[in-house]
Amino acid sequence: MVIVGGGFGGLKAAAHLAREKVRVTLLDRHNYHLFQPLLYQVATAGLSPADIASPLRSVLRKAKNVRVLLEEATSIDPARRVVHLNSGEVSYDALILAAGARHAYFGHPEWESVAPGLKTLEDALEIRRRVLLAFERAETTAEESERRTLLTFVVVGGGPTGVELAGAIAEIAHRTIARDFRRVDPSESRIVLLEGGPRLLASFPERLAARARADLERMGVEVHIGAVATRITPEAVFVGEERIATRTVLWAAGMAGSPLAKSLGAPLDRAGRVIVKPDLSIPEHPEVFVIGDLASFTQDGVVLAGVAQVAMQQGVAAAENALGLLDGRPTKTFHYLDLGTMATIGRASAVAVLGPGGRIQLAGYMAWLSWVFLHVVMLINFRSRVLVMVEWIWAYVTFGRGARLITGAWKVEPPAGEGGTK
Amino acid sequence: MVIVGGGFGGLKAAAHLAREKVRVTLLDRHNYHLFQPLLYQVATAGLSPADIASPLRSVLRKAKNVRVLLEEATSIDPARRVVHLNSGEVSYDALILAAGARHAYFGHPEWESVAPGLKTLEDALEIRRRVLLAFERAETTAEESERRTLLTFVVVGGGPTGVELAGAIAEIAHRTIARDFRRVDPSESRIVLLEGGPRLLASFPERLAARARADLERMGVEVHIGAVATRITPEAVFVGEERIATRTVLWAAGMAGSPLAKSLGAPLDRAGRVIVKPDLSIPEHPEVFVIGDLASFTQDGVVLAGVAQVAMQQGVAAAENALGLLDGRPTKTFHYLDLGTMATIGRASAVAVLGPGGRIQLAGYMAWLSWVFLHVVMLINFRSRVLVMVEWIWAYVTFGRGARLITGAWKVEPPAGEGGTK
Repeated sequence: MVIVGGGFGGLKAAAHLAREKVRVTLLDRHNYHLFQPLLYQVATAGLSPADIASPLRSVLRKAKNVRVLLEEATSIDPARRVVHLNSGEVSYDALILAAGARHAYFGHPEWESVAPGLKTLEDALEIRRRVLLAFERAETTAEESERRTLLTFVVVGGGPTGVELAGAIAEIAHRTIARDFRRVDPSESRIVLLEGGPRLLASFPERLAARARADLERMGVEVHIGAVATRITPEAVFVGEERIATRTVLWAAGMAGSPLAKSLGAPLDRAGRVIVKPDLSIPEHPEVFVIGDLASFTQDGVVLAGVAQVAMQQGVAAAENALGLLDGRPTKTFHYLDLGTMATIGRASAVAVLGPGGRIQLAGYMAWLSWVFLHVVMLINFRSRVLVMVEWIWAYVTFGRGARLITGAWKVEPPAGEGGTK
Repeated sequence: MVIVGGGFGGLKAAAHLAREKVRVTLLDRHNYHLFQPLLYQVATAGLSPADIASPLRSVLRKAKNVRVLLEEATSIDPARRVVHLNSGEVSYDALILAAGARHAYFGHPEWESVAPGLKTLEDALEIRRRVLLAFERAETTAEESERRTLLTFVVVGGGPTGVELAGAIAEIAHRTIARDFRRVDPSESRIVLLEGGPRLLASFPERLAARARADLERMGVEVHIGAVATRITPEAVFVGEERIATRTVLWAAGMAGSPLAKSLGAPLDRAGRVIVKPDLSIPEHPEVFVIGDLASFTQDGVVLAGVAQVAMQQGVAAAENALGLLDGRPTKTFHYLDLGTMATIGRASAVAVLGPGGRIQLAGYMAWLSWVFLHVVMLINFRSRVLVMVEWIWAYVTFGRGARLITGAWKVEPPAGEGGTK
């Protein structure tokens, strides 16, 4: 059996198959499982990459029947039952495809270089670099209009990721940075959150969405509703006629299924996700299961959201169905049990819908405490838990950010600024 | 007053000038101070970059007379008393140049792409990527000779950095990796340490160097003495006629002063370091002080080594002398007080020379404990201390490595292996 992708869905499936009488190969193009719900904290300098990433081999150390391969799948050939890799191929009797999604730019691929999205660790480090660099450049620039442009941050998309990014940047701008810079006046910073739809957090109850908006505005975020970005350039974001001058645009709107989906020959929805059957398999190929962000599964008239809980439950279901198929048993219909959903806005502020049927709705401090508690518990191993707790307690007490490094491509010349010694 | 470089020397000088009646500008091309003695731990997946890097602005938050600029100095014009930047220039009345050094390849610059050195965080992440990727590739390759080549690691240079790298890779190969991989047999791994001179750790007493060699060999490192790398290719390292097939070569031999030194017009030594006068200034320009790795300072007939202690003591002395100069007082001769030096070899193993005059010589467990204690104390802020302690205790108990991520350039295509969800 082959699993493509070591995210929440694929990893859960692999773990579920541990010690079963089946040989499993898990392919991923990274050597780690990423705890994606906290990725925005890496992007906003709160956590280090290693805090939210665990080597897949370590996680699956005891699953002796599971082989982990660091390989990139390039396409699937369902007729021959093989996964093509960058080098070579792997054949399968049953396949669980959990290859995820990437951000999409609504027909404007040229926006990607100006407005990076947030799906991978590399994305997060790039966003961190841009945000921190904007403050540094604002500190050195003499011209006032340029400084204001540098201190304007635009987040496109008012879903959970957009809300989390906007809130975190507002905290950096108004709290963390305030003490360390000499010239930049934090009150000059402007954080704009653009949402094309009628309200933030469309998947949350209206009352909580309104609360999230109020909390964001209290933190100094300008929330623009019904505001669709019509043009994005390195100098500005345009919303119709309105021009917002900025050097830092972050993309948190829209996503598209992995291009692997196309090679299946199965029907896709508009976002490029595979429309799966009730047992998560695809038409004509009962041995191919698609789960997580790449699957389009309709329950009670609604397509399930691309969240970790959905992926994990589908991972277990797909693993069970794949096992059953190989044993000649009939597969079972997947049913998602909604245990709740939450989004954090900032320090001591979040919204949460908990319990089956969304019976408990929380906002503010209690929601934030539940968010902290659940995310720490969910983090995959003890070490990450301790590290994240240390970072968070430190950040809570000091308003600081622990990982304020600008790394990467901005300059790789011989050293000018490193009096560092050994 | 201008300080170029926020390493140990430059940062110490800036901190010493805090609250003095002088306006100080600290230039660095990174926004953080790097705790370089632990850089090899980032390179070997033991620590995260943010664990050993602190934003310069935060460190100098309370030094209200110090301005931090994220800028790259491109040259110095001592006649006009200006530092040229990538954009613009800064003028000074007194200059402290602490721009450090970079590894040098003894006239073979083409070796750099094959054999990365270890000076910056980017270097460390590149080495981490190569080492971890070699194990991953060894796991997937079917051919035995290729697997042996992938599992051969060559470290060039038997100084402290080379010893630390070789020891850490041996631990990864024989301990950490052993449990997680299915096909790779840790006993197949070969770690070769090449030293061109007559013994390891030339700056240490002979007895400790011999002990370090014995400890490394016990850990499975092949130590080759008097072995000069004569050719390095992507497939092998040549030592005269001997060919060592390998895909991973790390460079820990030789260094050269920052190219900034040339623009001073002062005499340089063979390694491109500025030969400074007894008060750390340069001939003809009493207002220019050079410290740290970039300075060549002879005391008792020996050129001081490029270590943090030297840089920090020189930072204080240069700051004092610069202040004195501006006040019309005579400058003072610098004298280095050697408080000791240490190198770690691996788990519970190190060598240390402590106390003035090197009275105390330690090896093994006690040396390692002193090393751990001193490095934790020296780490620049509380947060790093706690994080590093957590990582180290975890690593000590589990033999694990906390930051085993392969990030960076190996693939940036649309996702194939990310079933991660939000």
